[in-house]
Amino acid sequence: MSEKKKTDIFYKLAAKYAEFYKGKVEVVPKVPIRKLLDFAIWYTPGVAEPSRIIAKDPELSFEMSGRWNTIAVVSDGTRVLGLGNIGPEGAYPVMEGKALIFRYLGGVDAVPLTVRARDPEKMLELLELIEPAFGGINLEDIESPKCFYVLEEARKRLQIPVWHDDQQGTATVTMAGLLGALDVVGKKLSEIRIVLFGAGAANIAFYRLLKIGGADLKKVSVLDSKGVLHPGRPDIEKLKETNPWKYNIAVETEGGGVVGGPEEAFKGADVVIAASKPGPGTIKKEWVASMADNAIVFAEANPVPEIWPWEAKEAGAKIVATGRSDFPNQVNNSLAFPAIFRGVLDVRARTVTDDMAYAAAEEMYRFAKEKGLSEDYIIPRMDEWEVFPRVAVATALKAIEMGVARRKASRDELYQHATEIIKRSQDMTKKLMELGFIKPLPE
Amino acid sequence: MSEKKKTDIFYKLAAKYAEFYKGKVEVVPKVPIRKLLDFAIWYTPGVAEPSRIIAKDPELSFEMSGRWNTIAVVSDGTRVLGLGNIGPEGAYPVMEGKALIFRYLGGVDAVPLTVRARDPEKMLELLELIEPAFGGINLEDIESPKCFYVLEEARKRLQIPVWHDDQQGTATVTMAGLLGALDVVGKKLSEIRIVLFGAGAANIAFYRLLKIGGADLKKVSVLDSKGVLHPGRPDIEKLKETNPWKYNIAVETEGGGVVGGPEEAFKGADVVIAASKPGPGTIKKEWVASMADNAIVFAEANPVPEIWPWEAKEAGAKIVATGRSDFPNQVNNSLAFPAIFRGVLDVRARTVTDDMAYAAAEEMYRFAKEKGLSEDYIIPRMDEWEVFPRVAVATALKAIEMGVARRKASRDELYQHATEIIKRSQDMTKKLMELGFIKPLPE
Repeated sequence: MSEKKKTDIFYKLAAKYAEFYKGKVEVVPKVPIRKLLDFAIWYTPGVAEPSRIIAKDPELSFEMSGRWNTIAVVSDGTRVLGLGNIGPEGAYPVMEGKALIFRYLGGVDAVPLTVRARDPEKMLELLELIEPAFGGINLEDIESPKCFYVLEEARKRLQIPVWHDDQQGTATVTMAGLLGALDVVGKKLSEIRIVLFGAGAANIAFYRLLKIGGADLKKVSVLDSKGVLHPGRPDIEKLKETNPWKYNIAVETEGGGVVGGPEEAFKGADVVIAASKPGPGTIKKEWVASMADNAIVFAEANPVPEIWPWEAKEAGAKIVATGRSDFPNQVNNSLAFPAIFRGVLDVRARTVTDDMAYAAAEEMYRFAKEKGLSEDYIIPRMDEWEVFPRVAVATALKAIEMGVARRKASRDELYQHATEIIKRSQDMTKKLMELGFIKPLPE
Repeated sequence: MSEKKKTDIFYKLAAKYAEFYKGKVEVVPKVPIRKLLDFAIWYTPGVAEPSRIIAKDPELSFEMSGRWNTIAVVSDGTRVLGLGNIGPEGAYPVMEGKALIFRYLGGVDAVPLTVRARDPEKMLELLELIEPAFGGINLEDIESPKCFYVLEEARKRLQIPVWHDDQQGTATVTMAGLLGALDVVGKKLSEIRIVLFGAGAANIAFYRLLKIGGADLKKVSVLDSKGVLHPGRPDIEKLKETNPWKYNIAVETEGGGVVGGPEEAFKGADVVIAASKPGPGTIKKEWVASMADNAIVFAEANPVPEIWPWEAKEAGAKIVATGRSDFPNQVNNSLAFPAIFRGVLDVRARTVTDDMAYAAAEEMYRFAKEKGLSEDYIIPRMDEWEVFPRVAVATALKAIEMGVARRKASRDELYQHATEIIKRSQDMTKKLMELGFIKPLPE
């Protein structure tokens, strides 16, 4: 079956099931209710006591309520999947799907929260208003460059982790894959020439991780639709205003020593990370052919990568990664966000930093290395569920190390807790299916 | 055991269990997950299709996502139970408890949302921002008179039901009880003299229901801490500014023909509805003794009513109701909000009006009348769970009649659906307890 046909089937089923199930997650009791008198404990008058205690020390809200494990999946619906600005109502099914994954793979209680907040200041105000009800915020599908400002500011203003998955999520799994790929070909991050093809949310965040990983920035070329970002570009002064993130990259990298477009940039590059627009043909075979030996190509556009893996291979690429599950080396955010949130929530972190994202990427790399790296296995697969608690622990330990954790715990304690909570979540899903509380798929 | 001792035990248990369970509700899958490939339907790429469809017609968000059954329990924490302004973190356990009851008694998915929004305009802005993610809003524990303005404005600005439980919830069950009590003593709402003792959220909302029920406003006396609200009060012009709701009552009722305090107001009154401050002794025996024959006294303060039931009876009251489960005639919001939301959500109502609240009260009264009214049974008991779907249906039908329902359905359809969803919710809780996903209470 062609890829397009397969995707069409997913579309059709998704629409049909959306109407049948009318929602992907639900809110259920976590405490026993034996008789109505129990509400005298869970509600009034009893509840006054935990409320009083928390009011005296609001930090105890992380220990005496569900806040510690509850996050909001927030979107303004301005850049939803490949659909563009479809508004908060349209974005809602996506956030529900995300909440489902948060729960199933990370044991996290996630609430879809699609909001009418296109203005970045409104979005920030919203986040500040709702902070007391959540242990973390996952931002999603917010247009660039607004998303950079929102994330930076939110991190300053809030005392809970704020994560923008289209930035850090994608950057984290990409870094994990790159570390694996470099290991396979025997190259070092600090020595290679890297091309970032596309300068949107994912690649600008990935650039930050490259810095943390010790890449030589003078060998990094970042391209947007107008070519390589470098200080000599005619629009450079305008960029300073409209997109300071691109401007800074231009200044820091000096274009990676390259002036021009993809043709110039690919020449001799060891690595290309593409997060731009769907292919095929967005990246040309001849560009890949001009890369260095043992070239590494990440073509992350969905649903069709910038270049088909077989084309990249034919052109001489040694390792190819895509966003798709039907090719080897899938770069999939779902590998990162459930585990990283598991980690930050378990230590009640005040923030989630890029260093923590990098630590998560390294742990994914280590996991894959232990399993045995190869050209077709540079990153853990989604079905290797043991990777999730490991990444959670790595993230949590980094939070403790950086002094942003409200709560400390040992590696063993963290591992055991993360494993239990994720396992419980999957067991519970299974049981709810068996018992029919989750209805079987309709004919 | 003394009442104080009993309450202390509830306090102690509530604090202990809050730490043990760390949350009262959780977010679980509502769709099957058989293998990871299923996420291609629930998430990307499949989810793009329902998103696209909803983007074209946002009203379909009520049919193709969980929005239809999901509400936010919103509080700024400014007037939490008897605790006053304890802030959003402190308020969180209360909203969790409310979410638990919403789910257990109404089958509603409720999300606790405690926010840093003391300013009424901020609160309204927040409600407008989050509207796309919810099918309804339950406001809770917001200080008076701000709460009146917030509710009125929110009703104008939002296209989903906004309910302030401390106003309408309490007013609804009070009205249900009053209709039952009047039936027992053979008096008519349109003829009696009524005293509202206390002019906070509950009684000001109850006053609106009295109007709907056809009470003779010239026989209604409303008291605040300074005495009967009437046009001759020295502070009347100031009230026009600071509390126009009280001002309007003073003008409309002309004090119910009374000038003075409780002593003057109680004299010859048929009914006293007290929603003021905890007793005992807030209402004096001699005041009750001065009431008309077959006097009806509602003493709703918690945890201790304004006058003990036996004292009111000794003073000649025929019927006494309180907020407590250990006396007959409990006036308990939990009888109203889960059922009323069940009703408005099932017809995707655009608003919830006072007329709908009144219809809910009437249905409670009818239910109790069918069971057999008496001095000690003027309102359904919490354990009579069949009342919930009945009240849901009455509310839903009123919404349809008033033209505020997005979706129409017959009485039978509504009844069957409400019954099923509430039953499922209770069965599911039971199963989760049996299977240990809800942990047993700790020793």
